[in-house]
Amino acid sequence: MITDEIISRLGSLPEFGLLHIFIKHTSAALAINENCDADVLYDFESVFNYLIPENLPFLKHTIEGPDDMPAHIKSVLAGSSVSIPITNSRLNLGIWQGIYLCEFRNKATGRNLIATIYG
Amino acid sequence: MITDEIISRLGSLPEFGLLHIFIKHTSAALAINENCDADVLYDFESVFNYLIPENLPFLKHTIEGPDDMPAHIKSVLAGSSVSIPITNSRLNLGIWQGIYLCEFRNKATGRNLIATIYG
Amino acid sequence: MITDEIISRLGSLPEFGLLHIFIKHTSAALAINENCDADVLYDFESVFNYLIPENLPFLKHTIEGPDDMPAHIKSVLAGSSVSIPITNSRLNLGIWQGIYLCEFRNKATGRNLIATIYG
Repeated sequence: MITDEIISRLGSLPEFGLLHIFIKHTSAALAINENCDADVLYDFESVFNYLIPENLPFLKHTIEGPDDMPAHIKSVLAGSSVSIPITNSRLNLGIWQGIYLCEFRNKATGRNLIATIYG
Repeated sequence: MITDEIISRLGSLPEFGLLHIFIKHTSAALAINENCDADVLYDFESVFNYLIPENLPFLKHTIEGPDDMPAHIKSVLAGSSVSIPITNSRLNLGIWQGIYLCEFRNKATGRNLIATIYG
Repeated sequence: MITDEIISRLGSLPEFGLLHIFIKHTSAALAINENCDADVLYDFESVFNYLIPENLPFLKHTIEGPDDMPAHIKSVLAGSSVSIPITNSRLNLGIWQGIYLCEFRNKATGRNLIATIYG
């Protein structure tokens, strides 16, 4: 969950507007999900692996490893950006909402995000 | 489907721009889908339940009931916001497109949305 | 992949901002995915058909053919719009990212997109 890191890097926000965050990768994604129980993150990963297991026999794009093509699909399902309203100069998230960087490779280096604020 | 309710609450729109709608919850979502046949809504729910059934044996976040964690995942798959172009001061939806509030809990109270217009 | 066609039609971009692209249909979608290996597109289609096969016995909205309701669901999963940051008057895509128009019907005519630029 990267909510606090995002907020700390944004600086002051306009009174009203939107925050758009974009991830510059095709095997990781951004999503908004429950921010409280660590089991949610565990289950999130389990369910995504249940939906799109590694080693599906019909896959052709396997040169980068069995986790690569599933990661591309999971990224499309979760999405490459999130947009969040800004109200009274704060992110107007629901009380249970947090911003997640979803890493779908088994091993990954850092990921690059672009934040755009308009208001 | 909440298209008409959204439109009725927006008031006058700019000539060109975008409407962003955000749902402040992690077990419900917003989506754009076919607006005509009630069976589509029925099938939408059936397919989402087929994809992510309740009581998957590996789930850990079960304290809020068997429908809670599936609802979180479904919300990520469908997404927490929709963005729709505004053209000539009207939502530029396709003729078959409607805005859906996707409720993924078996029982739910009201849901809060935030609309942001820029143009 | 429609990245180059999109860019060629946009004309000059603002120095900073966002590009929003919206598809006016409910059986096709827009997504950002790996732009290099043609097998990714092949696998993308295979996995989406694996997730949501035609002829699921519980479907009711079948009047337009067995591929129609699966196409509606796939469209919700992939999403009806993409938003991409503009930096230094260029789309700030990652090196491996391309914009895909995902056609989920077995036969389709043209699709209409709306591009909105703000900056």
